[in-house]
Amino acid sequence: MARLAPEWLREILRTLYQNRTVTRAEIIEATKLNPASVSHGLKALLQAGTILKVGELESNGGRRREVLNLNAEAAYFLAVDLEGTRMQFGLTNLVGDIRYRWSSDIDLSQSLPVESVLDGIQAVLKNLDAAQRSQLLAVGVSHPGFADSEGRVTAVNLNWSDFPLRAALERAFDLPVFMEDAHRTCILAERWLGAAKGSRNCMYVIVGNGVGVGVFADGRLLEGRDGIAGELGHVVLDSAATDPCRCGRTGCLEAVVSCPNIVRQYLEKIGASPERLAAYKVTEVFDRARQGDSSALAVVERVASRLGLAFSCLVNLFNPEIIVIGGDVVYGEDLILPRLRTELERRSLPRALAGVQLKVSSLGLDIGLKGAAALAFRQSLLNPVLLKKICSPMAAVRLHGGARKRKRGRRSVRGAR
Amino acid sequence: MARLAPEWLREILRTLYQNRTVTRAEIIEATKLNPASVSHGLKALLQAGTILKVGELESNGGRRREVLNLNAEAAYFLAVDLEGTRMQFGLTNLVGDIRYRWSSDIDLSQSLPVESVLDGIQAVLKNLDAAQRSQLLAVGVSHPGFADSEGRVTAVNLNWSDFPLRAALERAFDLPVFMEDAHRTCILAERWLGAAKGSRNCMYVIVGNGVGVGVFADGRLLEGRDGIAGELGHVVLDSAATDPCRCGRTGCLEAVVSCPNIVRQYLEKIGASPERLAAYKVTEVFDRARQGDSSALAVVERVASRLGLAFSCLVNLFNPEIIVIGGDVVYGEDLILPRLRTELERRSLPRALAGVQLKVSSLGLDIGLKGAAALAFRQSLLNPVLLKKICSPMAAVRLHGGARKRKRGRRSVRGAR
Repeated sequence: MARLAPEWLREILRTLYQNRTVTRAEIIEATKLNPASVSHGLKALLQAGTILKVGELESNGGRRREVLNLNAEAAYFLAVDLEGTRMQFGLTNLVGDIRYRWSSDIDLSQSLPVESVLDGIQAVLKNLDAAQRSQLLAVGVSHPGFADSEGRVTAVNLNWSDFPLRAALERAFDLPVFMEDAHRTCILAERWLGAAKGSRNCMYVIVGNGVGVGVFADGRLLEGRDGIAGELGHVVLDSAATDPCRCGRTGCLEAVVSCPNIVRQYLEKIGASPERLAAYKVTEVFDRARQGDSSALAVVERVASRLGLAFSCLVNLFNPEIIVIGGDVVYGEDLILPRLRTELERRSLPRALAGVQLKVSSLGLDIGLKGAAALAFRQSLLNPVLLKKICSPMAAVRLHGGARKRKRGRRSVRGAR
Repeated sequence: MARLAPEWLREILRTLYQNRTVTRAEIIEATKLNPASVSHGLKALLQAGTILKVGELESNGGRRREVLNLNAEAAYFLAVDLEGTRMQFGLTNLVGDIRYRWSSDIDLSQSLPVESVLDGIQAVLKNLDAAQRSQLLAVGVSHPGFADSEGRVTAVNLNWSDFPLRAALERAFDLPVFMEDAHRTCILAERWLGAAKGSRNCMYVIVGNGVGVGVFADGRLLEGRDGIAGELGHVVLDSAATDPCRCGRTGCLEAVVSCPNIVRQYLEKIGASPERLAAYKVTEVFDRARQGDSSALAVVERVASRLGLAFSCLVNLFNPEIIVIGGDVVYGEDLILPRLRTELERRSLPRALAGVQLKVSSLGLDIGLKGAAALAFRQSLLNPVLLKKICSPMAAVRLHGGARKRKRGRRSVRGAR
C-alpha cells in the first residue's frame, strides 16, 4: 500500500460510497484520476477486501467490465444523533447502512446528562462481535446548536452550554470522535446518500425543534470562520415580528416556523393555555388544518409564506441546484409545500430560481444517523491511521484466507459472477 | 520551465501578488509548498525576470534573506468597469497598478452601444508601446447584472439583454476576455489588494445603483450553479414593503437601499416631482440629513436599518470574518454606519457576530478596475498559454542581457541591495 497516493484511495472510496455499484470506467470518469492510478488503487483495495467484484458486464466490443462495490462490512462507525426529541444511536457499516440501533427520549426539561449518551453508545457496542469491534473506526455525532473547536457543545435543546462532549466520548470509548451540527450532517447525508447525490450546489433546510441550513457551495461544505455558518433560524425576515425566540431576540425565522412555534401560535390563536404546549404535537396542528380549522390554516399560511421568503433568500444568495427540506415540518408537506412554492416563485429572481429542485428529504428519521455516519466516513478518509484501517479490513484476513484456499485448487464462489 | 509544476508557479505568483514584498521563507509558509519546489520555482521566475530581488535582510543567524517582489511591468491587462454611471477603462500592470486610464459617461436613457466600450479600450491601447503590447495578456471586465457562460450580459442599467459582450471584445482585440459581475470583482479586489487581504471568509457588499454581495467562503469565491450567487439586492427582508424594484417585483432590498432609491424615497417624502429623480444625487440627500432635515433623516434611518438587517442575515448564514461595504452609499458613511451597526448587533447571533470586522472599502472609485485586473491576473494563471507568458516576460530579454553582461565582468546594480 506504500506507493499508493492516499488521494487516489480517498477519491476511489468516495466514488464507491456515493455510487454503490460502479465500473472501473465510471470511477475513472468520476475521480478524474488517470487510469493507471485508478487501476493501481483498485488492485490494492480488491486485494485487501475493502472493495469487492460483484459481477461483470459485457461491453460492446466483447470485453468484460468488472462491476465493483464497497465491502459494506469492511469497517464500522458509531453514529449518534442528538437532534430532536429522541436520542438515536446506530452501529453503521462502511456504506452507511444502520446495522443496529438504539434510541431513548430526551427530557427537554433538564440538562441532558452525558451518562445517557454514554449508555446509548454502550447499548450499541455490546452487540458487536470481536472482529467488528476491531474494525470500529470512529464515532460520528450530529448535534443541535454549536460546537467549538474543542468539541464543546452549546445547545438550548439539551440545556448544554460549552458542554465538553467530544472529550467525554473520547475518554469513554478511546475512539476518534467527529462532530457536526445537525444541518451540516443532514446535507452530508443528502449529498452522499440521498436526494442531492452528487450535486455541487445543494442545501438542506431543517425545520424541526430548531431551524438551520447545511450548504454545499461549489462542491464544498460551507463552514464559515468558526464553523457555524448556516444559522438560518436566526435570520430576521420581518423586523416587525414580535415572536419571541429562544435565543433571546424577537422575530427570528425559527421563532415563527419551528415546530414548537407552530404549536405555540396555534394555541395562542385558539386561546389555549401555554401549559398545553409541551403536550401538543405539530402533527395535530396539521391535522386540524386539513379539517379546515381556520386558526390552524392561518398558522400554516404564515409559516409556509415565511419559509418561502427564507428559501427565496437562499436561492438569491447561493444560486443552488437543489434545496432539500427535512425535519418534523414535513409531516405537513401537503399543506406547507404548495404555499411555500408560491411565495418562493414570487420572491426569487427568475434566473436564480430556474431549474432549482425543491425536494422533501427521503432519508426520513434516519437522516441524523446517516449523516453522522457519512461524516465519520468522510473524516476517516482524511485521517492517515483510519484510512489505512479502511484499506486493510479484518475482512481482508478472511479474503486472503479464501485466496490461499484458491491456490490449493478450490474455486471461489464469492460475488455475483 | 518544462519540469516546473504549473501549480508551484501559480502559488508563488499568487503569494507575491497579494503580499508585494516577501522573503523566500514567507512564500514557503504561505504556499505550503515544499522548500525545494519553491526554490525551483523562484529560480526560474527570477531568471525569467517575472520576479525581482529587491533587497536582503540580515537574519538572526547571520544568514541573509532575499527580499523578492513581482516585476510589476512583466505583463499588462486591460481592465474595464461598466458598473456605475461612468465607464472606466484602465491599462493595469501585473500587480494591478493602473498605468493609464480613460473614462466616459454612460447614457442611462438608452442601450449602451458596444462601440463606446470598444472606443474606450482603443483609447487605452494607443498608449502602449510595442513591448508593452506584446505583454498585454487579457481583458478583465467588471459588469453589472448577469452574464451567462458565453459572456452574454443582461443588465438593466446598460439596457442590455443577453448582449454578447465577450464575443464582441474577443473579435475586436484578439485577446482572452474574463468577465465577472461587479460584486464578485470587488471582493476579488478587496481580498487580493484591499481591506480583506488574505481573509478566507470575507464579503463585499456593493450599495450603488444596484446591490449585491461578493463572497469568499472558506477561501473560495462563491459562484453558485450558474455563477450568479450573491443577488443580495433581490432578497426580500420585509414582505410588507411596497417599494417597486426595477426587477419587476416589490420589496427587494435594492428597492429600498440603492442610491437611486434613497433619492426616490426622499423626493417622495418632500412631495417633489419624480422627474427630479435623474438630476438629484444621493450625496444631496446625505447633506440634507447632516443639516437635520427630518425627511432625509427618516430615509437614512430606514436605509441603514434595512442594511443592518441584511448584514445580520449575511453574518448568520456565512459566519464571515470581514464585511466590506462599498458603492456610492459610502458617501453617507458617517450617517449610515452607526445606525447599521446598531441594527446588525441587535439582529445577529452574538457567536456569529463576535469578531466580525465591518469596513468601508479603501479602494475608492478604482475598485472596479482593480477587481477586473485581479480577475484577469487570477484567470491568466489558470490558462497554460498566459501562465507561460507571465513566466517569460519581455523584461526577461533585458534581464538576460544584464546577466550576459555580468558574465563579462560588470556588476549588476539592480535592486536595493
